[in-house]
Amino acid sequence: MQISYKQAADIIRENDNFHILTHQSPDGDTLGSGFALYFALRQLGKKAAVICPDGTTSRYAFLSEGYEEPESFEPDFVIAADIADPGLMGSVRETYEKRVGLCIDHHVSNVFYAEKTLLNGEASAACEVMYNLLKELGVKTDNNIARCLYTGIATDTGCFKYGNTTAQAHRIVAELIGYDIDFARINREMFDIKSSQRIKLEQHILNNMEVYFDGRCAVLVISEELREGLGVPDEDLDGVAGLPLQVRGMEVAVTLKEKKAGEYKISMRSSGRVNVSEICGSLGGGGHKNAAGCSLKGDRDDVKNSALVLIGKALGE
Amino acid sequence: MQISYKQAADIIRENDNFHILTHQSPDGDTLGSGFALYFALRQLGKKAAVICPDGTTSRYAFLSEGYEEPESFEPDFVIAADIADPGLMGSVRETYEKRVGLCIDHHVSNVFYAEKTLLNGEASAACEVMYNLLKELGVKTDNNIARCLYTGIATDTGCFKYGNTTAQAHRIVAELIGYDIDFARINREMFDIKSSQRIKLEQHILNNMEVYFDGRCAVLVISEELREGLGVPDEDLDGVAGLPLQVRGMEVAVTLKEKKAGEYKISMRSSGRVNVSEICGSLGGGGHKNAAGCSLKGDRDDVKNSALVLIGKALGE
Repeated sequence: MQISYKQAADIIRENDNFHILTHQSPDGDTLGSGFALYFALRQLGKKAAVICPDGTTSRYAFLSEGYEEPESFEPDFVIAADIADPGLMGSVRETYEKRVGLCIDHHVSNVFYAEKTLLNGEASAACEVMYNLLKELGVKTDNNIARCLYTGIATDTGCFKYGNTTAQAHRIVAELIGYDIDFARINREMFDIKSSQRIKLEQHILNNMEVYFDGRCAVLVISEELREGLGVPDEDLDGVAGLPLQVRGMEVAVTLKEKKAGEYKISMRSSGRVNVSEICGSLGGGGHKNAAGCSLKGDRDDVKNSALVLIGKALGE
Repeated sequence: MQISYKQAADIIRENDNFHILTHQSPDGDTLGSGFALYFALRQLGKKAAVICPDGTTSRYAFLSEGYEEPESFEPDFVIAADIADPGLMGSVRETYEKRVGLCIDHHVSNVFYAEKTLLNGEASAACEVMYNLLKELGVKTDNNIARCLYTGIATDTGCFKYGNTTAQAHRIVAELIGYDIDFARINREMFDIKSSQRIKLEQHILNNMEVYFDGRCAVLVISEELREGLGVPDEDLDGVAGLPLQVRGMEVAVTLKEKKAGEYKISMRSSGRVNVSEICGSLGGGGHKNAAGCSLKGDRDDVKNSALVLIGKALGE
């Protein structure tokens, strides 16, 4: 059931002991909205713990600065932050799936698994929704809350670069950067700094991608051997699928990751003209207009050709 | 003489025929503020021409969409947009240096060469100053003006990434993206897309930079042979000096460009901890805390060592 900001604030006021869930493979928005809510609940004198399934990474450790892990307790209320689907709860799915009292989200793909859902599908980030909720609750923004909300909005919008950036995101951030947060350093860590393995991987990709349709489509194959050879950890693969789109003229990028022999996970990225959600949809997958995916079985060339035929059509070739 | 927004607006109202100057090696902010002013003056029923010394580049052609080049005319008033120093007027310096009635700028280094100067050194971009001036003038923002102002603010802040980004910049942009501008496409063009030569140059730099002080300082040498070998045009060298700072742990990047035999232009970039303006200052140059430069004579190794000795000291080595 969808509820309003006021209703969500009332529910929170009525409870005292909270577990806040974030999603697996955590990003800045789930952790930012989750920890911002933690700091807000503490300010309201409530008890709260943030549950990160499968842990978080050093990349986002700065978001939990100031967090005090409480002794294990039984919550009277569970809130999910930025979790559109219980499938994203990873190792804690069984424990929490049926117990989420309130889900705070911005994904239009939300499956409404929670008892109540506060959803704004227009928002650029769950942190934008969280900002509004905290205002409704009368929470005073502080440095911790500002740092968390800023990071979630910045990371989900590619530092305000992508088309999902809303006017409200800019207005909220105008307020947040007035607090004592080093947003330039946050952005440097989130967007600029790379491991040397990541740099090698990017070079490998740009030098080895196959180019089709007059430079308008690129195909990358990321094999286990390649990843192991370069020593690239899983978390360093973020955003790799979109890399070929930085080349002038490129319209579609296709990444093939071998899951096991004869089975490939396909990611497609579009620079805007081609709708890759339609292409992946007709291959049994789905996603957004500019970022979609599917899984295909077969040998590498067959899989690649299935994708290329559809992309060629979409490009008018 | 520094003047207020109101005084600047009054001066503009009193005149009818304007030349608007932008600076050489044009960027998004000088062209954005210059063309925004053009569209505003036309809306006020005035005659205006934008003068781009040494021309502009295809990269920024979208900013002048809607511009109608008037037949050559003698202006009664000249306005400089984002020009801190007449040295930046390039080929038109002689014609205009003594004739600028109003300079609109945000550089604290402005040398006050104009008869009157509207300067806000706190602003992230000249386009932020221009936005306020157009409001003072009662100009109605339209799609052309919004596109120009957005681009100037976005490019001068690294898409809102850098520490110079102000709360006002975010508030202004919250309004501007409400107009019919494809800001995601603008950002893609300004920040993501690269020529294949640029990609090769970046790879060359990351693979060939010399690393000192435990990975905290990198030195690049960009020789004529290298640039010619890769076919990299001058405008593709933008931002190259900061490239090594994307490697985790890197604090200072030094670029040596050979101007002629035995003479080097040095650019230094800092990730924030080391003040490279002080280092370049003691080598006879100057700049900002995180981006500075100087010129040195000598052979390559001597020049490099002069810089490294000072950087080592700053790093506490």
